[in-house]
Amino acid sequence: MRLPLTVLAASLLLANAGISYAADTRIPDATVKAAEQLRDKALTDDTGYKIVTSLTTEVGPRIAGGVNDARGRAWAIAKFKELGYDKVYTEAVTYPLWQRRSEHGAIVAPFAQPLALTALGFSAGTPQGGLTAEVVKFDSLDALKAADPSSVKGKIVYIGFRMTRQKDGHDYGMGSAIRTGGPAIASGKGAAGFILRSAGTDEHSRTPHTGVTIFKDPTQAIPAAALSNPDADQLERVIAYGKPVSVRLDLDCGITGTFTGANVIGEITGRKHPDQIVDIGGHLDSWDLGTGAIDDGAGVAIAMAAGKLIHDMPQRPDRTVRVIAFANEEMGLFGGIAYANKHAGEVAKHQLGTESDFGSGPVWRMSASVKPEARAAIAQIAGVLAPLGVAYDETRPGGGGSDLSQMHGKGMAALSLTQDGTIYFDYHHNANDTLDKIDPKELAQNVAVYAAFAYMAADAKGDFGSAPDAFKKDGAGE
Amino acid sequence: MRLPLTVLAASLLLANAGISYAADTRIPDATVKAAEQLRDKALTDDTGYKIVTSLTTEVGPRIAGGVNDARGRAWAIAKFKELGYDKVYTEAVTYPLWQRRSEHGAIVAPFAQPLALTALGFSAGTPQGGLTAEVVKFDSLDALKAADPSSVKGKIVYIGFRMTRQKDGHDYGMGSAIRTGGPAIASGKGAAGFILRSAGTDEHSRTPHTGVTIFKDPTQAIPAAALSNPDADQLERVIAYGKPVSVRLDLDCGITGTFTGANVIGEITGRKHPDQIVDIGGHLDSWDLGTGAIDDGAGVAIAMAAGKLIHDMPQRPDRTVRVIAFANEEMGLFGGIAYANKHAGEVAKHQLGTESDFGSGPVWRMSASVKPEARAAIAQIAGVLAPLGVAYDETRPGGGGSDLSQMHGKGMAALSLTQDGTIYFDYHHNANDTLDKIDPKELAQNVAVYAAFAYMAADAKGDFGSAPDAFKKDGAGE
Repeated sequence: MRLPLTVLAASLLLANAGISYAADTRIPDATVKAAEQLRDKALTDDTGYKIVTSLTTEVGPRIAGGVNDARGRAWAIAKFKELGYDKVYTEAVTYPLWQRRSEHGAIVAPFAQPLALTALGFSAGTPQGGLTAEVVKFDSLDALKAADPSSVKGKIVYIGFRMTRQKDGHDYGMGSAIRTGGPAIASGKGAAGFILRSAGTDEHSRTPHTGVTIFKDPTQAIPAAALSNPDADQLERVIAYGKPVSVRLDLDCGITGTFTGANVIGEITGRKHPDQIVDIGGHLDSWDLGTGAIDDGAGVAIAMAAGKLIHDMPQRPDRTVRVIAFANEEMGLFGGIAYANKHAGEVAKHQLGTESDFGSGPVWRMSASVKPEARAAIAQIAGVLAPLGVAYDETRPGGGGSDLSQMHGKGMAALSLTQDGTIYFDYHHNANDTLDKIDPKELAQNVAVYAAFAYMAADAKGDFGSAPDAFKKDGAGE
Repeated sequence: MRLPLTVLAASLLLANAGISYAADTRIPDATVKAAEQLRDKALTDDTGYKIVTSLTTEVGPRIAGGVNDARGRAWAIAKFKELGYDKVYTEAVTYPLWQRRSEHGAIVAPFAQPLALTALGFSAGTPQGGLTAEVVKFDSLDALKAADPSSVKGKIVYIGFRMTRQKDGHDYGMGSAIRTGGPAIASGKGAAGFILRSAGTDEHSRTPHTGVTIFKDPTQAIPAAALSNPDADQLERVIAYGKPVSVRLDLDCGITGTFTGANVIGEITGRKHPDQIVDIGGHLDSWDLGTGAIDDGAGVAIAMAAGKLIHDMPQRPDRTVRVIAFANEEMGLFGGIAYANKHAGEVAKHQLGTESDFGSGPVWRMSASVKPEARAAIAQIAGVLAPLGVAYDETRPGGGGSDLSQMHGKGMAALSLTQDGTIYFDYHHNANDTLDKIDPKELAQNVAVYAAFAYMAADAKGDFGSAPDAFKKDGAGE
């Protein structure tokens, strides 16, 4: 989610850009023409859809540290090689190992019945036999923050914020704030547990949405779970009877140690400057409830397919296109942070980058955080993407996407290629994140966008302004 | 599902009706006028929606023989009394007690991953540690029937029939035939287990559809389960790789004895002929996965609310309106069969009847199985229902609905009041059958239909032809 501060920073950049639009970074005409052909070819190419089909079918769910963490990495290495990438390698990433073993929940009184719920990442488990406690309901995170601890102590806190569908998915700002921040606030006030209405927009599906929660001090972790929307409706109806409501949580989950996985990287080596890099990617891990098709098999497939199509071009671009399948984005951007830390010293060699991690809906908006002198080249990229329905918004920064926001934070110039997320939060982080949610044509549009932009950025004359700390104020991206 | 034979029988009835349309069964003009007022009042009345809200919230899931079987009955007795019914009583119904305790499934090879599945009613349990076997796929029930036992023996049979949405839900004819009949056929050929693509139309939801299966000899029961549609897609994709596919079923379920529940009955006593009866109803049991809102909390609510609105009329109709909340429809029409057996000797006193058991979509078609001399009265009823969007189809029989098909089989004259079932099979028999699927206005349309028809039938001059075995050929209704 954007902060007003970052918009302001972008506006200042843009003001500068207005002055220096003579521009020394340019994309050669022949490159633009080649990128147009690449774009059009990608629109009718099914490489991306085949990749995401292979990943979700042959590997399936890929929770970080689970049995499929290694299988997913083996798949990615084999797939990069099968696609003809020039270099394929891994970089180790270490993260806490949180495991979900089983989860049940129920209203105990006044009207006993099961609840469809799922534990949040880093939730504590409940004692043997479960945790039964009275529910105290809050309508917002602010209301919980303002609550007197005595009203919360020993109880299960419930927050009932309802997300609605939007193209840019902005309700997830509040939905994820409640999920990530609510449990620790409740714990700090002495709550026994925490439940929320799922941060999801599928009103009618009893598939609760998991997602990470943050306990800065892991010893303060309490059981924390999300109810499906119909179950949240039901709990609220029961609460409305005005009688004390008690709920049982029976969560067998928790942190059991640490795990070392890896970012898996494939490169299409640049013709003239192989050590200079355009970064694209997605994250290889998913939540365990679905098969991680839209989150983020799609992103991995978009980036891998874009690289493959660039590989197949008559002439390689000047610079290297690096495709990164990140480890463990879901539980805290571990892959992105590891990548940024490892490559912080080479930030000036990272030409431009962005990650796809918002499903498979069509890209409809582009924005960029680049040096003013590179705005003309960005406009050239925008010109090639415009026929795909992508509008260039010069007033917004480019965040680089989830994991690559970290490298952007180190100073890498970055784009945002914003996808239509209208239905993304119907399926995000729940059991329904499966292959059938991906429209092959929409996925191909994404591949076309990534292939064309990466090709042009890798073949530009001049750079986009990457330098240590250059874009620090742009924050953490989408 | 209708059989051609029954349509033929109806046509013959109609041919007769054409001859004798002078008609001795008539509805007085004052009754028609009163029914029109009742209809219009019902359209803006929320009694039905309040009833189904109360049932699904305060009781929740109501699998026959489960802990909520008794709670559901207690609720129904209390609700009838609260609504002011004149007589409230129960009639015992005994049925096998099948219990679902836990269920898991997975593809074991070649691509290990969990499957979202649910055991079918009367499925056997699997041994401790589950049942793992190779899958053999059939595209249809006929293909399974034709299979050589050697191709099936020791394997898990999978049938992949895909239902699509229809207003009359006719694909359920094949879907339910596979679910009810497939496991026993597979068992007869020596299969170790049976799985099917859910008999449901929700393509994108990982909420498998349960439902009864039939083993005439319970000792031949094998583990039998339904995959959600996305899981069936996934299994078929995995099978398409051409390698042997093995699946593990881990179902803890089975028959543990018998259980005695009851049909719960409320009556609005007739003014002149209290021993003559118009029967309406729904079934009180539901599957355990959802809260039984559309199947069949809606039917119970429609009938209860219709009776309540008739109770509130300035003048009672001549005959009694009997509302029946049937026990255990889901596992074999036990409530309907018990009712028909108990009341078979009084069939001539049952004026006309029909049950609501197809969700809460609006009624769009009426058909009837009545004596030819009563067609004019049926046409009068149709005239009052027409403004509600209900078309009278004289070419079709009336089946009486699920449980009341049994009383119709004994000779009770019966209507069919066909609801729009376009989305019914998205939610039917799965976890998503919850209150949010009911549109209060559509429910009120149903109440208006039932209230107006029952009032007119109960106040008609003459009868509709109920007599022992009068309509035997009409079969088992919808």
